[in-house]
Amino acid sequence: MVSDPKGPRPTLEAVAARAGVSRATVSRVVNGGTGVRDAVRERVRQVVAELGYVPNSAARSLVTRRTGAVAVIIAEPETRIFTDPFFGRQLRGISHELSAADTQLVLLLVEHRDNYARIGRYLAGGHADGALMFSLHGDDPLPAMAERAGLPTVYGGRPGWPGADRAPRPLYVDTDNRDGARQAVRHLLGRGRRRIAVITGPLDQTSALDRLDGYRDALGTANPDPGLIADGGFTALGGEHAMARLLDAAPDLDAVFVCSDLMANGALRTLRARGRRVPDDVAVVGYDDLEPAAWADPPLTTVRQDVEEMGRLMARLLLRRLGAGGTGAGPDLAPVITEPRLVVRESS
Amino acid sequence: MVSDPKGPRPTLEAVAARAGVSRATVSRVVNGGTGVRDAVRERVRQVVAELGYVPNSAARSLVTRRTGAVAVIIAEPETRIFTDPFFGRQLRGISHELSAADTQLVLLLVEHRDNYARIGRYLAGGHADGALMFSLHGDDPLPAMAERAGLPTVYGGRPGWPGADRAPRPLYVDTDNRDGARQAVRHLLGRGRRRIAVITGPLDQTSALDRLDGYRDALGTANPDPGLIADGGFTALGGEHAMARLLDAAPDLDAVFVCSDLMANGALRTLRARGRRVPDDVAVVGYDDLEPAAWADPPLTTVRQDVEEMGRLMARLLLRRLGAGGTGAGPDLAPVITEPRLVVRESS
Repeated sequence: MVSDPKGPRPTLEAVAARAGVSRATVSRVVNGGTGVRDAVRERVRQVVAELGYVPNSAARSLVTRRTGAVAVIIAEPETRIFTDPFFGRQLRGISHELSAADTQLVLLLVEHRDNYARIGRYLAGGHADGALMFSLHGDDPLPAMAERAGLPTVYGGRPGWPGADRAPRPLYVDTDNRDGARQAVRHLLGRGRRRIAVITGPLDQTSALDRLDGYRDALGTANPDPGLIADGGFTALGGEHAMARLLDAAPDLDAVFVCSDLMANGALRTLRARGRRVPDDVAVVGYDDLEPAAWADPPLTTVRQDVEEMGRLMARLLLRRLGAGGTGAGPDLAPVITEPRLVVRESS
Repeated sequence: MVSDPKGPRPTLEAVAARAGVSRATVSRVVNGGTGVRDAVRERVRQVVAELGYVPNSAARSLVTRRTGAVAVIIAEPETRIFTDPFFGRQLRGISHELSAADTQLVLLLVEHRDNYARIGRYLAGGHADGALMFSLHGDDPLPAMAERAGLPTVYGGRPGWPGADRAPRPLYVDTDNRDGARQAVRHLLGRGRRRIAVITGPLDQTSALDRLDGYRDALGTANPDPGLIADGGFTALGGEHAMARLLDAAPDLDAVFVCSDLMANGALRTLRARGRRVPDDVAVVGYDDLEPAAWADPPLTTVRQDVEEMGRLMARLLLRRLGAGGTGAGPDLAPVITEPRLVVRESS
C-alpha cells in the first residue's frame, strides 16, 4: 500500500495501530531513540515504509510550512556571546517578542567561524521558519546561506555585504550609529577638548564603520590624524591595548571616544595604569549604556542605544514577514532605524 | 507517478529539473520563503506532490535518522542564562565538544517556565538527534518531554524527578556536591568557627539539596539550627537578602557557607552594609570558582568545580550514546561524577 501524496498523510497513530505498538515506541524508532527491542524496531520500520509515514517536522512543514521556530545566529564565537552583555540584552528583546507569539527561539552557537557550513546545513534542513542574524562581518557567508535556504531573514545592523543593495533589499533593524558618534564627539568638543582620539570596533562591521564616520563628521574632516584612531575589536582587552597604542602615538590626547562601553572599561584601566586622570587629563565617552557603563569608574558618559528594543523590533519585523506568508514582504515592511541619545556622566 | 517508499527518495534536484526551475526556487517554495511568482510556486508545489518529495530535514532523518544537531535546554529563564557565568561556561564546554564532532549546538531559550510546552513540540518535531538538559527543578516536565519524543538525553546534575530511579536510568554528569559542601564546612570548623550558617540554592534542585546535606554531614547533625539556614535562590540578589535574614535570626553567626559564588557576592554586600568584617567577624566560603569569585572583595575561598569540563563530559556522553545508535545505551555508558576541590583564599 502506498499513500496518495495528495491525500491526507499517514499519522503517527496510524503507524502505531498497524504495528501494534504505542505512539511512544513509534516516535522512539523514528527518532533513533534507544530502549526498543530489535524485533519491534524492525516491525515499526516496515510499517513506516508501507504507509509512507513522514515524521513530524517534515509532515508539519508540508502541511503548514511552519516549524513554530525562529533561528537566531550571532556571527561571533560563543565565548563572546556569553561575556558581552550586548548579546544577552538583544536576545532578551527577541525572546520576549517571540514568546508572545508562541514561537520557539532557537539559538545556533558556533565555536569558530569555520563552523558556519554546519549552520548552513541546519538552516537548509527546514528546522526554522525564519532567521534573525546579527553582528555580521563584511565577508560573512551567513546571508547567502539564508538566501539559499529560502529562509525569510531580518538582520541586526545595516547590511554591509556585497550585493546587499540589490533588490530584494534585506530587512534590518539598526540604530543611527553615525549620529550617535557625532553626538559623542560634539559633546567632547563642547567641553573644550581638541585632541580627541577614537577607539573603533572591527572595521568589517557597519556599526563600527558608521561610528568612525560620525567621528569624522564631528571633527569636520575626512582625514583625521591616524595616530588618533585605533581598533579595539569591541572587547575589553582590545580597548585596553588600543588605549595604550593611542597614548604612545599621541601622548597629548585630551579625550577619547570609545565605540563600546566594554572597550571603554579596558581603556579606563590603561589610563589608570598610565597615571592619567579621568576626566581631568583625558575625557572618556563610551557607547551602548549597558552594564559595563555602570561598572566603570568613574561612571561613564555614553551613547545610549536601546538594545533590548532593537531585539524586539527585529523579532516583530520577522513575525510580520512570516505572517505575510508567501505573498512577498509586503509594501509596509521596511528597515527600522532607532535614535541613539547621549547620556552625560562623570567620565567627561 | 508515485515514488516507491522503499526506493531512493526524490531529490531537490529532481523537483527542480521536472519543474524547470532552479534548486534555490524549489527550496524557497518548500520552506515558505518569499520572492517567487505565484505561477512558479504553483508548478513547484505540483511537482513536489507528484514526486512525493520530502524536504531535507525529514528526508535526511529518514535516511540517516540524523539532523546533525543536539538541542541544549537550560531550565531557567534566558535572563538568568545570560547573567550567571555558570551557564556560559558549561555551554563553552558543550560547544567545544560538539564542534569537534561537527554537530550543531541548538540552544532552546524560554522566557518563562510556562513556555516549556513549546520546547516539547520542537523536540517532538525531530529537529535534533539528542538533548542535553541542565539546571532542572523538581517538577520540570522536560525529562518526560524528551522521553515522549524518544530523544536520547544526557542531564547535567543528578536527576531528582519522580521515577528517575526506574530503569532505564537517566544518563547524567554531576559533581560530588555533598562532598564539596563537606570540604567547605570542615574548613570553617578547622578555622575555629562554631556558628556556621548556610545560604542554599533552591531546594527543588538536587545540587542545592546535596550541598545542604554536606553541610549537615560536616556539622554532624541531621537537624542544624534552622535560624542558620536560608535559601538564596542561586542569584546575587537572593544571596544579599538571605544574608540579611541570617544576621537577623542569628546575630552571633561567625561564618557562612554560600552555595554559589554569585550568591556569596550578594552576601558580602550585606555583610559590608551591616559593618561585619570578612573574615575577622564572619568567614565566607563560596561554591563554583568562576568569575564572581575573582570579583569578590576580599577574594573568595570557594569550592572549585570544573564547569567547562562538566559540559564537555555531558556532550561526550551524549555523542557516544548517539554513536551507539539503536543498539541501546551500551554497558559502558554510565553517569559521570567529578570531584570538587576547596580553594582557600582571604575570605576565610
